[in-house]
Amino acid sequence: MRVKYRKGAPEHLQENTHIVVENPVDFKGRWAERFGNNHPIHIEVGCGKGGFITGMAAQHPEINYIAIDMQLSVLSYALDKALEANLPNVQMMLVDGAALTEYFEDGEVAQIYLNFSDPWPKNRHEKRRLTYKSFLATYERILPSGGEVHFKTDNRGLFEYSLVSLTNYGMTLKQVWLDLHADEEFSQVNVMTEYEEKFSSKGQVIYRLEAKFQEK
Amino acid sequence: MRVKYRKGAPEHLQENTHIVVENPVDFKGRWAERFGNNHPIHIEVGCGKGGFITGMAAQHPEINYIAIDMQLSVLSYALDKALEANLPNVQMMLVDGAALTEYFEDGEVAQIYLNFSDPWPKNRHEKRRLTYKSFLATYERILPSGGEVHFKTDNRGLFEYSLVSLTNYGMTLKQVWLDLHADEEFSQVNVMTEYEEKFSSKGQVIYRLEAKFQEK
Repeated sequence: MRVKYRKGAPEHLQENTHIVVENPVDFKGRWAERFGNNHPIHIEVGCGKGGFITGMAAQHPEINYIAIDMQLSVLSYALDKALEANLPNVQMMLVDGAALTEYFEDGEVAQIYLNFSDPWPKNRHEKRRLTYKSFLATYERILPSGGEVHFKTDNRGLFEYSLVSLTNYGMTLKQVWLDLHADEEFSQVNVMTEYEEKFSSKGQVIYRLEAKFQEK
Repeated sequence: MRVKYRKGAPEHLQENTHIVVENPVDFKGRWAERFGNNHPIHIEVGCGKGGFITGMAAQHPEINYIAIDMQLSVLSYALDKALEANLPNVQMMLVDGAALTEYFEDGEVAQIYLNFSDPWPKNRHEKRRLTYKSFLATYERILPSGGEVHFKTDNRGLFEYSLVSLTNYGMTLKQVWLDLHADEEFSQVNVMTEYEEKFSSKGQVIYRLEAKFQEK
């Protein structure tokens, strides 16, 4: 997600270090201390404006959520949502998803969400897609054996690419939706992102999958 | 595919045993003799009215095709197409796809096509779907190591199910299309089935995948 530079965004983040983690490397292997409990940690790589993570955190108080985005202005909007929701189980980090092993110990993250990630449609940008094999290797390290990635997008090309990339990596698909909003049962628990609300209301099909790394 | 009983269908098949193989078990391990050459053998499980297999056979004279269907009237229509096309590289068998190991030696088939297979949408009919694990085990035996299954359908539920079933079996996806006819390059070589022509002309999306068994 790209947004215009938001004036005051750096200060906004600095004033809310109880939510936006200042030195996330310090918490590698110690996230339970930060949250003050041993609940499972779910992260969203590329959290955008934060609607998903705050919605999930409200729905699942027994899970700790960490929203990750590398764009300052984007994260500042997500921070607004988190401040408004005022939930104890949401934290945020302004970092690059490619460096997750800097911030999490092996197996420290219970589940990973990717929502409406940048499709990077040009072949030469393949390595930037969040379902490219180097990202998968990173996710596999910070997840437990057999850990899961849950991914949704409206981008057909990225979804087709991801199905191939994930299975070539050795992941299996637990479930696939080729028209998520046609599933009435899932729709009752589905937390929509801002982007999802906008595009699905225009009749755009939403794709989703739950994939699992191999048991070690 | 279901069709009404076609009068004279049994006789029609019996009169054309140069195309419709009478005792296919006799050719297990000896299909090269039947075709009179060592070209790779591709089979279509559930050939319907035969438009796909005759179209492919015309496009690829260097490949031998065997069309399989368990419904007599359906196969009699496919036979009409084969007689009209008059190609040396098409054979047909009136058999059950579940029993393929009766007719083919391990590794004797180079590639398998599944086109618009019956979706069997009820859970209790899962075992009848041609992408159910017991069918996959059969395909794996008659294919070489790393053999491929190419599958297309307009049925969203069957495609979602198949993505999960294939990857749980350990297959990887080589390529996936979530709107086959939007791919202009592939459309130039795509041989449409009768069903595909009818439903895609109504704007129905066609899904396709190429999946690969594990290398042994």
